[in-house]
Amino acid sequence: MKNDRLLKALFREPVDQTPVWIMRQAGRYLPEYRAIRQKAGDFLTLCQTPELACEVTLQPLRRFPLDAAIIFSDILTIPDAMGLGLSIEEGKGPVFAKPIRDTAAIDNLAVPDPESETGYVMEAIRLVRRELDGAVPLIGFSGSPWTLATYMVEGGSSREFTRIKTLMFDEPGAAHRLLDTLSKSVTAYLNAQIAAGAQAVMLFDTWGGVLSPRGYRAFSLHYMQRILEGLDRNRDNATVPVILFTKGGGGWLEDIAASGCDAVGLDWTVDIGEARSRIGHRVALQGNLDPSVLYASPHCIRDEVASILDKYGDGPGHVFNLGHGIHPKINPDHVTAMVDAVHEISRTRLNTMTSAPKQRSR
Amino acid sequence: MKNDRLLKALFREPVDQTPVWIMRQAGRYLPEYRAIRQKAGDFLTLCQTPELACEVTLQPLRRFPLDAAIIFSDILTIPDAMGLGLSIEEGKGPVFAKPIRDTAAIDNLAVPDPESETGYVMEAIRLVRRELDGAVPLIGFSGSPWTLATYMVEGGSSREFTRIKTLMFDEPGAAHRLLDTLSKSVTAYLNAQIAAGAQAVMLFDTWGGVLSPRGYRAFSLHYMQRILEGLDRNRDNATVPVILFTKGGGGWLEDIAASGCDAVGLDWTVDIGEARSRIGHRVALQGNLDPSVLYASPHCIRDEVASILDKYGDGPGHVFNLGHGIHPKINPDHVTAMVDAVHEISRTRLNTMTSAPKQRSR
Repeated sequence: MKNDRLLKALFREPVDQTPVWIMRQAGRYLPEYRAIRQKAGDFLTLCQTPELACEVTLQPLRRFPLDAAIIFSDILTIPDAMGLGLSIEEGKGPVFAKPIRDTAAIDNLAVPDPESETGYVMEAIRLVRRELDGAVPLIGFSGSPWTLATYMVEGGSSREFTRIKTLMFDEPGAAHRLLDTLSKSVTAYLNAQIAAGAQAVMLFDTWGGVLSPRGYRAFSLHYMQRILEGLDRNRDNATVPVILFTKGGGGWLEDIAASGCDAVGLDWTVDIGEARSRIGHRVALQGNLDPSVLYASPHCIRDEVASILDKYGDGPGHVFNLGHGIHPKINPDHVTAMVDAVHEISRTRLNTMTSAPKQRSR
Repeated sequence: MKNDRLLKALFREPVDQTPVWIMRQAGRYLPEYRAIRQKAGDFLTLCQTPELACEVTLQPLRRFPLDAAIIFSDILTIPDAMGLGLSIEEGKGPVFAKPIRDTAAIDNLAVPDPESETGYVMEAIRLVRRELDGAVPLIGFSGSPWTLATYMVEGGSSREFTRIKTLMFDEPGAAHRLLDTLSKSVTAYLNAQIAAGAQAVMLFDTWGGVLSPRGYRAFSLHYMQRILEGLDRNRDNATVPVILFTKGGGGWLEDIAASGCDAVGLDWTVDIGEARSRIGHRVALQGNLDPSVLYASPHCIRDEVASILDKYGDGPGHVFNLGHGIHPKINPDHVTAMVDAVHEISRTRLNTMTSAPKQRSR
């Protein structure tokens, strides 16, 4: 691989500059994405057409010197494969035609076969790997069981999570059966992505942060741990690192770090320096710039990048990223400012580090 | 005062049972509220008509044996008094006709005179005090400067806080001037509420949790501290306790507790037992039931109440509450289940505590 900084950093090995990628880096803020999206018609057609998914996966890499690609897809492919009928409504987000409305529906769910029922994702991964030709690693991903369950039971996005929480409190047995089926499905899905060529995988627990600490451990983290135990992380004489990201999970970083993952994703509400001292050196950290910083001026963006690099300090194991997905109205030039700042500032820092002992020994 | 459990608990004095009140306890989940609201026409008319505000403030106390009243009002009275033109749109939330769109608008803001420009709040407080006749204490409140600023700059509710964060990052001087004016306004406003009869006051920092740790300290907590310094907390030979609540502030509890407040409000994403051990015995804690628990069965509600009381433990200084405002579709019978559970379970616990040493000494 020509640029393996991401994998090195995820395994806490030294790098010459801090690797950076961006959650939702292939997306609406890019005019070239909007052009291809308009031609395709809708978001799901893009996801489900491997050639188009491959193309938009590669778009941000042509524009910015990013250190990773992430397969263009959606977190709700599994419930769609389970027959819930996913559509994405403009301005409203994902909607399921057949949401889970009773425990019978939970007991009727089957674990989808990844290659036959979400084969378009695997095919897109194979295409991207071929196109990348070892330039940077390709990240695969899935939604966490809890996050998938919230959409499946609520029928779409939610503010208060009334239905899933009522299920959780009143019928915990049924909630656990749903999460069990989902964790088996996610395990099979990510193993298929690894087999197809994903060189790192990430679990997006977008809604774990709406739970209480006890609820989080029992209904979200527990099932992510089962996935981590079930992943076949060894492929082609390499180990596939796993990143676990719970938005709003800043209170539970120690638990997340002990889950068996290789890296913990951080949103912007935690100080990355404090996160590192709380977690110690067990895992790498990914994050944690507030996505809103990208609305600010390039000068300000550079300051905020420097602040995060400073707080992380000199140790290995930092993957720079936003603390959540990039917003659709960001100016791509501001992304350039961020990526360049990460590389330039970290390279200077890391080179100073390497040369400092020599100077002292003179 | 007939029932002073709330004030005792806020000052960490022993009580016979844990006091409980509910954020937004006067609200849409009550049919008697919906009836008066329909007659009044809209939410702001209710807030701005002291007799109606008094009536809805008292409604939940007639139904449930709550240990406090909280004045029925809105957090956005101050920006409205500043001339921004508040309206509440059904299903959309608060909207300002004249939001802050440039720094000139910030520099033109004046600190409103609380009695002449938000006199309806003070008059409602005086009415409620007369009606309560010492039954339970009356809580006054305000939005925090940061929270008010988000609405004023965004023009209403927000998901991504684009405008206020761009202001904060790109023009920090202007953001600080806005927050300075707001902290002076909130100080005057809460002092007027105390003079009118509020026996405890609460700062609602609804959106402090969308900031980074550094941003929170500089743009939200700092200004709440200035308010705490400026409050005249001594009235009628009694001290008026102050509760500070930052939703999503679980990562910064130590800082909040050191701000000079008497009690820290907790949402449901922190464990109240861990919060207590992190904070120590400096302040009381208020919270922290997930509002969604009230969708569950009364049996489940009782279990969740017991769990929070267990985690808080035997020390003084707990005010039971939800971790955020009650949802509009909650069944009032479930509120009864919660309030009764808090009183019954805590009374048994606290009595066991008191009698235990006697049994040992026999």
